[in-house]
Amino acid sequence: MPSISQKGQVMPESPIRKLVPFAEEAKRKGIKVIHLNIGQPDIKTPQVALDAVKNNTLEVLEYSRTEGSEAYREKIADYYAEKGIEVSANEIMVTTGGSEALSFAMGSIADNGDEIIIPEPFYANYNGFATASGIKVLPVVSQIEDNFALPAIEEFEKLITNSTRAILICNPGNPTGYLYTKKEIQKLAEIVKKHDLFLIADEVYREFAYDGREHHSILREPGLDENAIVIDSVSKRYSMCGARIGYLVSRNNKLIKTALKFAQARLSPPTYAQIASEAALSTPQSYFDEVNKEYTERRDVLIAELEKIEGVKIGKPQGAFYCIVELPIKDADDFAQWLLEDFRINNETVMVAPAAGFYATEGLGKNQVRIAYVLERDSLKRAVNILQEALKSYIG
Amino acid sequence: MPSISQKGQVMPESPIRKLVPFAEEAKRKGIKVIHLNIGQPDIKTPQVALDAVKNNTLEVLEYSRTEGSEAYREKIADYYAEKGIEVSANEIMVTTGGSEALSFAMGSIADNGDEIIIPEPFYANYNGFATASGIKVLPVVSQIEDNFALPAIEEFEKLITNSTRAILICNPGNPTGYLYTKKEIQKLAEIVKKHDLFLIADEVYREFAYDGREHHSILREPGLDENAIVIDSVSKRYSMCGARIGYLVSRNNKLIKTALKFAQARLSPPTYAQIASEAALSTPQSYFDEVNKEYTERRDVLIAELEKIEGVKIGKPQGAFYCIVELPIKDADDFAQWLLEDFRINNETVMVAPAAGFYATEGLGKNQVRIAYVLERDSLKRAVNILQEALKSYIG
Ligand SMILES: Cc1ncc(COP(=O)(O)O)c(C=O)c1O
Ligand SMILES: Cc1ncc(COP(=O)(O)O)c(C=O)c1O
Repeated sequence: MPSISQKGQVMPESPIRKLVPFAEEAKRKGIKVIHLNIGQPDIKTPQVALDAVKNNTLEVLEYSRTEGSEAYREKIADYYAEKGIEVSANEIMVTTGGSEALSFAMGSIADNGDEIIIPEPFYANYNGFATASGIKVLPVVSQIEDNFALPAIEEFEKLITNSTRAILICNPGNPTGYLYTKKEIQKLAEIVKKHDLFLIADEVYREFAYDGREHHSILREPGLDENAIVIDSVSKRYSMCGARIGYLVSRNNKLIKTALKFAQARLSPPTYAQIASEAALSTPQSYFDEVNKEYTERRDVLIAELEKIEGVKIGKPQGAFYCIVELPIKDADDFAQWLLEDFRINNETVMVAPAAGFYATEGLGKNQVRIAYVLERDSLKRAVNILQEALKSYIG
Repeated sequence: MPSISQKGQVMPESPIRKLVPFAEEAKRKGIKVIHLNIGQPDIKTPQVALDAVKNNTLEVLEYSRTEGSEAYREKIADYYAEKGIEVSANEIMVTTGGSEALSFAMGSIADNGDEIIIPEPFYANYNGFATASGIKVLPVVSQIEDNFALPAIEEFEKLITNSTRAILICNPGNPTGYLYTKKEIQKLAEIVKKHDLFLIADEVYREFAYDGREHHSILREPGLDENAIVIDSVSKRYSMCGARIGYLVSRNNKLIKTALKFAQARLSPPTYAQIASEAALSTPQSYFDEVNKEYTERRDVLIAELEKIEGVKIGKPQGAFYCIVELPIKDADDFAQWLLEDFRINNETVMVAPAAGFYATEGLGKNQVRIAYVLERDSLKRAVNILQEALKSYIG
């Protein structure tokens, strides 16, 4: 029998994949499962984007330009300008989701055996893209007690060797909800410049910054033009995850030219999705204000309810729509499975994402779960109540 | 300055990329450029597919299932059954174009430094995907005199070592138009079984087989379940290249499970495109009959016209919509550029794809070009006439 690749074997599975069959089994039994485990918002996609696709008049659904049309990239540049980020259309490459932008970025900067440093816990799929490119991820632990603020910069410095190619951050963070301060961004800028590394910032949740906090894009950091690579996406911003449109943004021309070669191989990003995404740029500000208000309220409800549970620690989110919660248990994997298999209140139970999958360091996060607050407040309240009762029963 | 990856540096550019600026410059000067260089058909997308998207009622454009919905994959299985290929829904994975299926296949079977064998000339982007995965491509030369039939199987055998992971074929071929016979497929089946290799068949042009010839899918070859991987795509079949939907098909469960891990990292294929592609499965047979007739006629016109040119050799196409043409010149790169810069008839010129980019062996294909017959017969006639006159002037 022909053999699977080594990297295919070690390629990580999604942290919740193991639980999916248990959730499906519960549903088959007629049990309602409240999903706190996924980042799929229930927010409506802007009508202007939906309409653009419904009203399209294409007769031949052609390949688009590899890097996205000039017109679309010009408009994206305008979007950035409004955020105080000066980039030109040819510093932007349209990709098939932020996911593909991450793949292209990694492929463009690192070879097999090279290393990138990432504060953990981090978006689990960074592991997948790194493994696919033969890249080693070196984690730096951030702490729930600090709401997962940037670890001391010396911790990064300790890990830097000749094999290091980049530091990768997610801002605001999935799964942490942490929003880096300007000072933290400056520290990162300094260290990557000092060591000639790339700084990759996954800013797909840029728009989701709460309590009047400002988002500091690495593209606003002076002197970082050669080092900064931004990963962006329409998925969460316009609640259009299924479009599969993202961007790779950098003022480093060599980087963009290299990424373009990876992009050429796959021909083009999806055409309908670009129609929707281009139209979505005209979404009125009121949409974002409402969405932001909604998420802030959801977060507040979630945190208030969680704080009622004894023995629980919370990494308080300032952005995105996730938080990491430490539970008074030993093994969140087991607890999450038990919730789906053995626990219910009024025929309802809850699915959470065990957090170990968001850590690269073996053994970390075992008593933590990630909760996504992408549901209405009532569901969130019921869900946390179920968690609270479940914990009593599970521990007792 | 941070440095670009080695593989990013050697990553090949699209074979026509260098010519694009010259084509753009010609257009700026008001010259009409007839594009014989690209595989973007002018055929209308089936109305049923276009309508499905226009009539969609999505309010939240959500991620789809990573591997494509069960319902859609069931229908794809039905499509294969009609072609005499028995596969179940869970042996099919929906991908973002055949391109992504190629990436996932390579990542799942080969590690950095591993090798795959491909008859050349071959679809240039195989090089790109291989480079991105750190895989070495070993070419086996096929000959224009044989219309690019399968080279002697001993030529493959000679190259097989411990590092070999797969043989990759394209059937029918881009850029050759060659359709492998049942006998050739059997020879390939034997050799991959003997050496425990994968046989990857890119069958995206399956539907385009002319003159009553039958397409022999490797999935119809008995005893090959563990070895066979098929790459498929809706791009050309339904003239919906911009959708970005393809499939990875294999009865090797381990392979599919591994590819699924790569797929999970990128979350899901595009949602609108899946709506269009699922609907496209209901395209009436009359559509394919007409398209086939149209391409057969175009091919016949193209070949008849080309044969009028002195000193030209043609790899006669039996499928797909490309052919390789050997010209009485030394450097097709230079000729193609010259066509765009310096030659016109009635303010029209022609863009062809120099064939060297479809060979992995340095120096081969330098006097060949690839012509795609995706244009109406009148344009094709005018284009070949321009080529003919241009050759006289270029050589003279
Ligand atoms: C932090 C982060 N980055 C990137 C992505 C990729 O998103 P997409 O490929 O849909 O743009 C996600 C999706 O959940 C994410 O949470
Ligand atoms: C031989 C071959 N394989 C694969 C592809 C990839 O096509 P897509 O990604 O649009 O499915 C193409 C496109 O031209 C092709 O010619």
